[in-house]
Amino acid sequence: MAKRGERRFAIGVDYGTNSVRAVVVDVADGSEAAASVFPYPSGDHGVILDPKNPNLARQNPADYVEGFYRSVRGAIRAVPREVGFRAENVVGIGIDTTGSTPLPVDQAGLPLAFKKQFQHHPAAQAWLWKDHTSFQEAIEITEKARAMGLPYLAKCGGTYSSEWFWSKILHCRRAHPKVFQAAYAWVELADFVPGFITGNLKPETMPRSICAAGHKAMYHESWGGLPSEEFLAALDPELVKVRRRYADRAIPSDREAGRLDPAVAKRVGLPAGIPVAVGAFDAHMGAVGAGIKPGTLVKIIGTSTCDMMVVPLDQDLPDIPGLCGIVPHSIVPGMYGLEAGQSAVGDIFHWFVQHLTPAAYSAKGDPHANLTRQAETLKPGESGLLALDWNNGNRTILVDPLLTGLLVGQTLATTAPEIYRALVEATAFGALTIIQRFEEYGVAVKEVVNCGGIAEKNPFVMQIYADVCNRPMKLSRASQTCALGAAVFGAVVGGVYKSVEQAQQRMTGTKAAVFRPRKAAAETYAELYQLYRRLHDAFGLPNVQIELYDVMKRLIAVRKRVRGEK
Amino acid sequence: MAKRGERRFAIGVDYGTNSVRAVVVDVADGSEAAASVFPYPSGDHGVILDPKNPNLARQNPADYVEGFYRSVRGAIRAVPREVGFRAENVVGIGIDTTGSTPLPVDQAGLPLAFKKQFQHHPAAQAWLWKDHTSFQEAIEITEKARAMGLPYLAKCGGTYSSEWFWSKILHCRRAHPKVFQAAYAWVELADFVPGFITGNLKPETMPRSICAAGHKAMYHESWGGLPSEEFLAALDPELVKVRRRYADRAIPSDREAGRLDPAVAKRVGLPAGIPVAVGAFDAHMGAVGAGIKPGTLVKIIGTSTCDMMVVPLDQDLPDIPGLCGIVPHSIVPGMYGLEAGQSAVGDIFHWFVQHLTPAAYSAKGDPHANLTRQAETLKPGESGLLALDWNNGNRTILVDPLLTGLLVGQTLATTAPEIYRALVEATAFGALTIIQRFEEYGVAVKEVVNCGGIAEKNPFVMQIYADVCNRPMKLSRASQTCALGAAVFGAVVGGVYKSVEQAQQRMTGTKAAVFRPRKAAAETYAELYQLYRRLHDAFGLPNVQIELYDVMKRLIAVRKRVRGEK
Repeated sequence: MAKRGERRFAIGVDYGTNSVRAVVVDVADGSEAAASVFPYPSGDHGVILDPKNPNLARQNPADYVEGFYRSVRGAIRAVPREVGFRAENVVGIGIDTTGSTPLPVDQAGLPLAFKKQFQHHPAAQAWLWKDHTSFQEAIEITEKARAMGLPYLAKCGGTYSSEWFWSKILHCRRAHPKVFQAAYAWVELADFVPGFITGNLKPETMPRSICAAGHKAMYHESWGGLPSEEFLAALDPELVKVRRRYADRAIPSDREAGRLDPAVAKRVGLPAGIPVAVGAFDAHMGAVGAGIKPGTLVKIIGTSTCDMMVVPLDQDLPDIPGLCGIVPHSIVPGMYGLEAGQSAVGDIFHWFVQHLTPAAYSAKGDPHANLTRQAETLKPGESGLLALDWNNGNRTILVDPLLTGLLVGQTLATTAPEIYRALVEATAFGALTIIQRFEEYGVAVKEVVNCGGIAEKNPFVMQIYADVCNRPMKLSRASQTCALGAAVFGAVVGGVYKSVEQAQQRMTGTKAAVFRPRKAAAETYAELYQLYRRLHDAFGLPNVQIELYDVMKRLIAVRKRVRGEK
Repeated sequence: MAKRGERRFAIGVDYGTNSVRAVVVDVADGSEAAASVFPYPSGDHGVILDPKNPNLARQNPADYVEGFYRSVRGAIRAVPREVGFRAENVVGIGIDTTGSTPLPVDQAGLPLAFKKQFQHHPAAQAWLWKDHTSFQEAIEITEKARAMGLPYLAKCGGTYSSEWFWSKILHCRRAHPKVFQAAYAWVELADFVPGFITGNLKPETMPRSICAAGHKAMYHESWGGLPSEEFLAALDPELVKVRRRYADRAIPSDREAGRLDPAVAKRVGLPAGIPVAVGAFDAHMGAVGAGIKPGTLVKIIGTSTCDMMVVPLDQDLPDIPGLCGIVPHSIVPGMYGLEAGQSAVGDIFHWFVQHLTPAAYSAKGDPHANLTRQAETLKPGESGLLALDWNNGNRTILVDPLLTGLLVGQTLATTAPEIYRALVEATAFGALTIIQRFEEYGVAVKEVVNCGGIAEKNPFVMQIYADVCNRPMKLSRASQTCALGAAVFGAVVGGVYKSVEQAQQRMTGTKAAVFRPRKAAAETYAELYQLYRRLHDAFGLPNVQIELYDVMKRLIAVRKRVRGEK
């Protein structure tokens, strides 16, 4: 216990795709006392790949354990002396991870990959969120749920994904039956880490995150938790055992997963017994770290986006078509957590830089900066270009991976910076489409708070988002919002605050500088968005016929007007 | 007269956009004895531009006169001794030029630009074919003809162009009334050069090319030649004088424009009195040089294309919507000349190289060659991409400059060579659309003969054209088909042959090597063409609604099938 007047701390541990980051945070105001990053040593930047199969992406579970030791110990050691840190003053620990990242475990809950005979078997590793080997099984699950008239897809946008829990397990069963048979149970990474560091790993009873279960495993209390044995057996009788070796109820992250195990505590230099919160996904704890509350949309903008909102449980909330998930307690306990997202944002800009940027912009300095310098001198509509942001499919609102990019309006004078800007605008139009979908279903977006690499570093992109969405774009005060969010949960389970909301009020906030929409730009973008939406619906919706004859002509008309051409 | 056993020659003079080329050709077999090129000295590569107005493109008429002297003299001097050339053995001269390239002249038929007070006035120069300052007048002419219920547009695809005769003259009247008032008459470049070198320049009586008149000035015998005075007066009363100072009948190029003027003859080293053929447009004489005949489509493929066919006058031929022109005698006398074209082909490839090609393909060597090396390893459909070839609008069959490029199918892995290939394929789909339009209206395409820079130098493009069109692609034997075609007319007016057809049989032909369609490629392209056509119609035709939902999905399906993906 901290003595009166001493600062108290929570630790947040954020398991990303390539590394794990631990932060030590002052629970009074959320300020970061220290941080430490541990890059996963296995595979290619932490990801085990298969040169013969671009869909495969796995991780070595040993990296997670080592990553906890190294990052937490590193962060503690990195706290400057003047902060007045004492290990005894750490009140709680929170964990967030990527997901759905399930791994097969033995009866004790330890990864199969820890056993010698499975050490190098790809199917015995953790199946990273972006592993797409299970696309066939995802289709099968979606079709089966529809055919059986079951409601399981209602809370995840109507389509089950190849990135999710059951698709991956079913694919393992089909493609690697020996691994499947050797696995006693399957756990999400978000459950494994808290279980491991609290010595609470027995699959049937270890705490299972409502966030992971609800968003990725079709868990919902209205149908009794996980999908029924009957449904799972219809997919494959062997799946039933996976359900039976899972906790009866999944729980939110303001609850303790357990207390820090003495052996683990010793390795990181903390006292044993510190409360550890139930885990959750990185984006969801990130939303908490960015100050999510009813009416506030939190966008985490990086290679792709996660767009999150919360709605009080007592508010009447319909199913919203096209959302990745609507899960009670998943982000903030006591509220529905709503998750939407764009399949590619920064990835599209990076693709353009990598594959289509001429030497004039890439030879010297950062190509993104060089393109941006030209692109930001353009007025909205000046290029005559319009793009769809579907190079990696569309997550929200179409939930369709079988979509691709589109660019229209090219002339013989179209330049690389013009296209770069059109791609940025396309992602902004995609962002607006998500906002509109929330509002169409009664979830008012009163504020937008942005975080993630692109929001942090790219004012050009954020200004376009403000203009296109015709709303102020705020930025989260903390740059490491996911780790901060995990620390918020650490502070809550540590008893510093009674609720996540109370902790957020003290520990999170936005920056003073805000990107505000510019009137003229917003007007032009409103016009262009109508055209974007026509293309979106024409290529994205079945059984619709939309007249497109005037799309090119209206783009030319806008271009001429903006340029002042006769 | 040539002595028995001596070789006889015709001279063809080809006035291009940047230079004029003269060739000396053996009339017995069309072989080239010598050639000489004279780059126009004025402006930017021969074109007078206005930095404030990208639509403006003019030429100095003095360059045409100097160009005749220099190129013809140069070609004659360049003939190798062993050829046995004698100036007395030149039987005739043919002239082809760009067009519509009208210029204002005085009462004697000499260019206004030759007068001191107009020497530097842009409106007093020749208005080069690609001058687009008259776009507003083109719309006005089209609307007026429609409103007055007049048939003038029936033979030029239904829409009058800003590149054509009356648009330019009307714009001069509106924008530069002093120049217009000083002009006694207007002549096409294709008429000016033969008139000048034969001393036959009086505007009312100088021979006017049926090719220029019929394709660009709405001349047709069925309505009494040029458009009526009533129609022209409705546009502007001053236009009537332009009509009155024009020959009663336009004539084809197998007729003499006159005999070589002694003063001109002396300057080029030829005897006076050599017969000179009536002029025509470069592409049309090029079609003759490439061996055009009924059933043979001649494609001149360069920055854009000209696609030409001929149909015997006694064949029943309907108006064909979307063709640039259907004009009796315009290509081969005694036949309808049909002209179609694509607004940009090589220009699109060049645009991609200039603006979107990364250093990996542009740093060393020719970027086109580097991209081609990768692009030709791809199978049809392998990239999943599909493009529309409209970066410069669509000339045939939509006759619409207000169209732009479109690319669909991009993923995060799409590469520059994949897009380069998709752009080549798009132009091939555009070429097929023209072939289909000919055939839909009863003009069977039994053979395709290609010429021009891209046909000559780019086997990668030609093989794709063969596969997409599912037809053999032949190449013209001569590389300078326009100049050769002009020489064919020189041989005809020189009396060596009784008809153009007879001359073509001896003087023109195709290369032995032919690009033949490959079955598997043709099958895939047939599938992709259906998708191209859906996009073409959806964005190009008014009042149609086409379902496009499956376009991206079918492109992905083809991609997976071709790649052998699971």
